[in-house]
Amino acid sequence: MIAKEMVSYVKNGSAIRAMFEDGKKMAAEVGAENVYDFSLGNPNVAAPKEVKEAVMEILNEEDPVMVHGYMSNSGYEDVRGVIAAHLNKLHQTSFTENNIIMTVGAAGGLNVVLKTILEDGDEVLTFAPYFVEYRSYVSNYRGKLIEVSPNTVDFQPNLTEFAEKITAKTKAVIVNNPNNPTGVVYSEETIKKMAEIMEAKQKEFGTEIYLISDEPYRELAYDGVEVPYLTKYYDNTIVGYSYSKSLSLPGERIGYLVIPNEMKDFEEFVGAANVANRILGFVNAPSLMQRVVAKCVDAQVDVPFYDRNRKMLYEGLTNLGFECVKPEGAFYLFMKSPVADEKEFCAAAKKQHILLVPGSSFACAGYVRIAYCVAPETIQNSMAGFAKLAEEYGVK
Amino acid sequence: MIAKEMVSYVKNGSAIRAMFEDGKKMAAEVGAENVYDFSLGNPNVAAPKEVKEAVMEILNEEDPVMVHGYMSNSGYEDVRGVIAAHLNKLHQTSFTENNIIMTVGAAGGLNVVLKTILEDGDEVLTFAPYFVEYRSYVSNYRGKLIEVSPNTVDFQPNLTEFAEKITAKTKAVIVNNPNNPTGVVYSEETIKKMAEIMEAKQKEFGTEIYLISDEPYRELAYDGVEVPYLTKYYDNTIVGYSYSKSLSLPGERIGYLVIPNEMKDFEEFVGAANVANRILGFVNAPSLMQRVVAKCVDAQVDVPFYDRNRKMLYEGLTNLGFECVKPEGAFYLFMKSPVADEKEFCAAAKKQHILLVPGSSFACAGYVRIAYCVAPETIQNSMAGFAKLAEEYGVK
Repeated sequence: MIAKEMVSYVKNGSAIRAMFEDGKKMAAEVGAENVYDFSLGNPNVAAPKEVKEAVMEILNEEDPVMVHGYMSNSGYEDVRGVIAAHLNKLHQTSFTENNIIMTVGAAGGLNVVLKTILEDGDEVLTFAPYFVEYRSYVSNYRGKLIEVSPNTVDFQPNLTEFAEKITAKTKAVIVNNPNNPTGVVYSEETIKKMAEIMEAKQKEFGTEIYLISDEPYRELAYDGVEVPYLTKYYDNTIVGYSYSKSLSLPGERIGYLVIPNEMKDFEEFVGAANVANRILGFVNAPSLMQRVVAKCVDAQVDVPFYDRNRKMLYEGLTNLGFECVKPEGAFYLFMKSPVADEKEFCAAAKKQHILLVPGSSFACAGYVRIAYCVAPETIQNSMAGFAKLAEEYGVK
Repeated sequence: MIAKEMVSYVKNGSAIRAMFEDGKKMAAEVGAENVYDFSLGNPNVAAPKEVKEAVMEILNEEDPVMVHGYMSNSGYEDVRGVIAAHLNKLHQTSFTENNIIMTVGAAGGLNVVLKTILEDGDEVLTFAPYFVEYRSYVSNYRGKLIEVSPNTVDFQPNLTEFAEKITAKTKAVIVNNPNNPTGVVYSEETIKKMAEIMEAKQKEFGTEIYLISDEPYRELAYDGVEVPYLTKYYDNTIVGYSYSKSLSLPGERIGYLVIPNEMKDFEEFVGAANVANRILGFVNAPSLMQRVVAKCVDAQVDVPFYDRNRKMLYEGLTNLGFECVKPEGAFYLFMKSPVADEKEFCAAAKKQHILLVPGSSFACAGYVRIAYCVAPETIQNSMAGFAKLAEEYGVK
């Protein structure tokens, strides 16, 4: 008697649960240390010490009625001010507290934005490969997710197809930078071209097309690569941020939206986003954690840990002859499957107790995602298994 | 360019904001201590000391990767187990962790349930007066909120009209017990009759009709009044709970759903509710606060404080000749307006610097809501103004 839409979700969910159960069974049989689980994008590095210090300080010094209380649906004004100032320092922007809405993580923030803008049948474009939940977020508000096919040369967005797929019904474009699942960072050149195309299409159709930048991995960028700040390139941009990875607080559900003054009908947009935050049942981002992140704007998790894992994994796999997209950000490596049907390869990997996610889960068949937010030993010890796979599939 | 639905929300929002700005202006003119703001249902009592102790203990003793990390979308299994055991002790039920889903407050929980069950045009019944956000929650999933008119004799639900309004399209009934805005507690007798009607209608139409009990005020019940636990009276019941009032943690967004085994298609329902929790962008209830509430199941806020306010306000107003619904729970008093147009009365009250919410905001014109989660002095000092209003309207 539940909603039909939800029945299909439950069925798909069972497949994932089956995979998870398989993994547990495997761990019970061969020992957890002999299972190389690269399937989850779950930070394995502890929150920096500043987080605990901030909690203690707040609880010892601030008024509990305020700390745990309701505030404006946008969040505490002082917290939003601190975040705006921090962004200005980093990106030479000029945000104030009025440009920030605190949200229940980036997932909450994206839902708030989509509720704010979407009407039935509106189209939202995104670039494959992409985080699979975007499809559900868009469908929550009766929008239609339109995929732009992957550019398997360098995994920068396929801008030719992008331009072709924008129509009068296109309401928004979602980008995820650094990217899950590829680990690629969309370059400034890409962003500039994308902005040009969107400007031209807005004029052509007389519409507003929103650029939604989902940035939970912003701070996880390596080798000094620059992650462009999109509000600087395109007026109708919304940035969705989360502290899940930068402070290793994924369970706390704390993030924010940036809505720049340049946004068309800025006041109305912000007003509507606040209403959406409330009526979707978020009400406001968790209050104590709002105050914590404001005290931790300069703190960060152990990024070098992820970087060492990245190098070890990339070198290990390329030495074995696998074709890998070189990751510049996030904690994922995207590897070409040595057979067209990457699910077959995932099944073979499982026999080596290596758990991978097929690229088709991200609308990019023929590849697999390897999450390297794991213990370094997991990477080291998995190499024997990968070597067997390399041999089995004759990759060298 | 935002969604049309949201434009109307923003317009209504502006009216409320105007009211709020008026209040601020008034405070600036006559001094905040001379403004008697009874408009907000915002707990003004601090969280019990156990909350701070629990946070400290968790941060000092538990693994930070676990404390701030992702867990199942339902929440930590151990936390859910503790809550189930606590409910069993209080209500002689037999829940386990499988019956509990941790949610982003009760508002988040209600949205999860409605996403789980509603299809376009499904009807959801509720009893006036009711919390105005129910209308938005239901409309988020394209359901239609159907009001049952208020029973102004004792503000127990109008069950005759209820039975008449149930149709083959009725998917759910929302009750709020203790009630916002009346402070009335729906009695066991009411609940038994309501359950009988619903059972009969399920048979008549061959449908499932879910009873959703929104219970953020459960612990705020006075004079030893019993608040019936609805899963004991009707199988297809979902309880939505929040710690916003019982632990004074409204900003933290922490609550849970109870889904009993007796629920039709229990497994599928729970599976779908978990998916809804994820795809609506909640993902999971805030992790640290989950662990905190598990340590605080026996703690509670200063309920006697609210009780003293309740008595002082009720006695003060009835002595002046106002007709009041005697509040048995929550922290609201519902008073009959001495003129049919209660908005006129609210405007007159404002001249006495007394801020009230018109009953029409809860689909019950002719009454006003007075929130007594305020300092006792606010009640005391407001009485002179209420006395003038009594005289002005000749209530005695």
